[in-house]
Amino acid sequence: METIVLKFGGSSLADNIKLNIVANKIIDFCNKNNKIIVVVSAQGKTTDNLIKEAKELSYDPDRREMDVLLSTGEQISISKLAILLNRLGYKAVSLTGWQAGIFTSNDNGKAKIEYINTQRIEKELDDGNIVIVAGFQGIDDKKDITTLGRGGSDTTAVSIAAAIKAAHCYIFSDVDGVYSSDPKKIIDAKKIEELSYDEMLDLSNEGAKVLHNRCVEIAKKYNVLIETGSTFNNNIGTQINNKIEESLVKSIVKNDNLFLITLKYENYNADMLNKLYYSLLKNDIIPTSIINNSTNSFNVSFTINTSDLGKFQELLERELSMFSSAFTNISRISLVGYGIVNNKEIIEKALEIMNINSVDIFSVQIEECKLSIMTKEKINNKILEQLHHELI
Amino acid sequence: METIVLKFGGSSLADNIKLNIVANKIIDFCNKNNKIIVVVSAQGKTTDNLIKEAKELSYDPDRREMDVLLSTGEQISISKLAILLNRLGYKAVSLTGWQAGIFTSNDNGKAKIEYINTQRIEKELDDGNIVIVAGFQGIDDKKDITTLGRGGSDTTAVSIAAAIKAAHCYIFSDVDGVYSSDPKKIIDAKKIEELSYDEMLDLSNEGAKVLHNRCVEIAKKYNVLIETGSTFNNNIGTQINNKIEESLVKSIVKNDNLFLITLKYENYNADMLNKLYYSLLKNDIIPTSIINNSTNSFNVSFTINTSDLGKFQELLERELSMFSSAFTNISRISLVGYGIVNNKEIIEKALEIMNINSVDIFSVQIEECKLSIMTKEKINNKILEQLHHELI
Repeated sequence: METIVLKFGGSSLADNIKLNIVANKIIDFCNKNNKIIVVVSAQGKTTDNLIKEAKELSYDPDRREMDVLLSTGEQISISKLAILLNRLGYKAVSLTGWQAGIFTSNDNGKAKIEYINTQRIEKELDDGNIVIVAGFQGIDDKKDITTLGRGGSDTTAVSIAAAIKAAHCYIFSDVDGVYSSDPKKIIDAKKIEELSYDEMLDLSNEGAKVLHNRCVEIAKKYNVLIETGSTFNNNIGTQINNKIEESLVKSIVKNDNLFLITLKYENYNADMLNKLYYSLLKNDIIPTSIINNSTNSFNVSFTINTSDLGKFQELLERELSMFSSAFTNISRISLVGYGIVNNKEIIEKALEIMNINSVDIFSVQIEECKLSIMTKEKINNKILEQLHHELI
Repeated sequence: METIVLKFGGSSLADNIKLNIVANKIIDFCNKNNKIIVVVSAQGKTTDNLIKEAKELSYDPDRREMDVLLSTGEQISISKLAILLNRLGYKAVSLTGWQAGIFTSNDNGKAKIEYINTQRIEKELDDGNIVIVAGFQGIDDKKDITTLGRGGSDTTAVSIAAAIKAAHCYIFSDVDGVYSSDPKKIIDAKKIEELSYDEMLDLSNEGAKVLHNRCVEIAKKYNVLIETGSTFNNNIGTQINNKIEESLVKSIVKNDNLFLITLKYENYNADMLNKLYYSLLKNDIIPTSIINNSTNSFNVSFTINTSDLGKFQELLERELSMFSSAFTNISRISLVGYGIVNNKEIIEKALEIMNINSVDIFSVQIEECKLSIMTKEKINNKILEQLHHELI
């Protein structure tokens, strides 16, 4: 008898029809003589709606109280799913984060799981129950409710799988796996059967939305076998494991949510760059890359996420008004695959394609399993398609 | 510095405008240099909606899971109110039932508060916080979430007031107090300034909806001073305390939610009444009064609440089909006031009015502070008005 963890995201739970599909998927696994732990997110748009309601009461809601509010979303999901499974004749019991023994740091809104006391989960499994655990939430050492931040339910699932030494951790969503590129942009994008943890980490960091990167880090650390799949079909998904194979490029992704910022000032001052970096970090703006273009005058370029642009513009007006500034929406294309660092042909080919298309490159970064090219402009899907065609 | 408990019901929290009114009422009490504990219900129709959603998944939802689901309603209220008070510049912290140390029996859906560990509440008060506690919920000895049943937030408020030895427990709703009769039925019904616990208990048992009777029992036991009032005005409400005064009739209420049942059978059998009683209780039907009208044949009359009628009709078909039966919707009129038992004039006057109006009486019960007259028919508001006019 194997213990397995199944995780279902919010869009898989959005209405009663979908809840029934999820329940039947769980029952399929249960009938194969497994001990089952299910981790769920909040239904559909619940979390977004709760955030909206809180913002109607306060432009900057207290973070401790936000976590009390948001954690109700998953609590509603777990109880509904347990009610449904019980009605279908399968013994099921729901556990909130604190009942499931999920202890976290006390950073409300972005807490990290520190420890899982699996006693209650194991007792309920031993009693023959399907155990349904609220994802995304836990408690800190003061017994205050915490949440793990967006995508945190993946992390809950993998952490429980690690703590309980589960044979598999299935992450179900509305896509059935990780693709060699975004299927919405590239017609011949194909599903990847196997990825190593490092490859998946690189993809998550580049914005592939299949798995939260914190969850992949934990899976890597505790060697948890992750299988991704679709809630709505039985296709084989992508397996994320510790197998390492010398390989070609497995996936190419493009991130258009970046802004290239250039700041200039006539008088150069050696301390200025430090001060700039300090201002950015103090305001929770983390530049993805920062380059000093000159030695005689101050001429610094860096990239930030589009989501930080508003904050940065405020900062510029408030503290950095001495600089002349320029903003451009740019792209980063990343090729992911184990061993890319040793494959000069791939790097050459990629740069050649950029060159043929007269793309003005801002930076190139080569890592163990990733080649990232940051451009000085937003580039179109045709180039992505060409890279995909030539390299995959 | 006095510690006081304020309780707000669901209709006082239904939308953002009402939440703001509640927050300002709390701030008024806070500015009078009090330590404040607020107990709240779920917003508006939240609980009803959650019940409806659960019934869409199962005709008979698991009771443990229902409590996990329903308890989210109050959790949403506490966090929203804390967010709002914090925004208005008042330090506030929300606590769920389990965080507030509310331990109950394990009867899901109708749990009783057994013990309150006030440590966390007291710590938060000492830190200068307004403490906002989720009403209606607690945890049992297995750390499972429980709910106290309808009206349970009143009980939470009074139990906390008792445990913390609060100076006052204010129960706010959309009516400002207890009236001498239903103001919707009797034009000259007037607000009662003071009631003893026993008088209030009699009124609650007779269906006055201002206070849940379990909460009055606890208030009586621990001598908690209850003040009822309206969320939406500053009128003086009704105080419920332990003062006893010889008085006339304080309130007259009519309950039309009763059915008089008569069961007949030709052969008399001494054991039949016991068997009938046992059948009723086994099916959770508690007759308010049961009378054996005959000694030679079986001819038994009793009254049940309208809400039990469906269950009783099923029972009749299933187990009691040998009886011939009759059903009538009847009324019970209750006169409440301390010392009624010793005031023959009141009893005589009441019965005289019934007589003048040719009301067929089924039973009369006289208790310490209550006279109840059960009729054999449903009686109209004119008689209630006449009683109110002559006796109050």
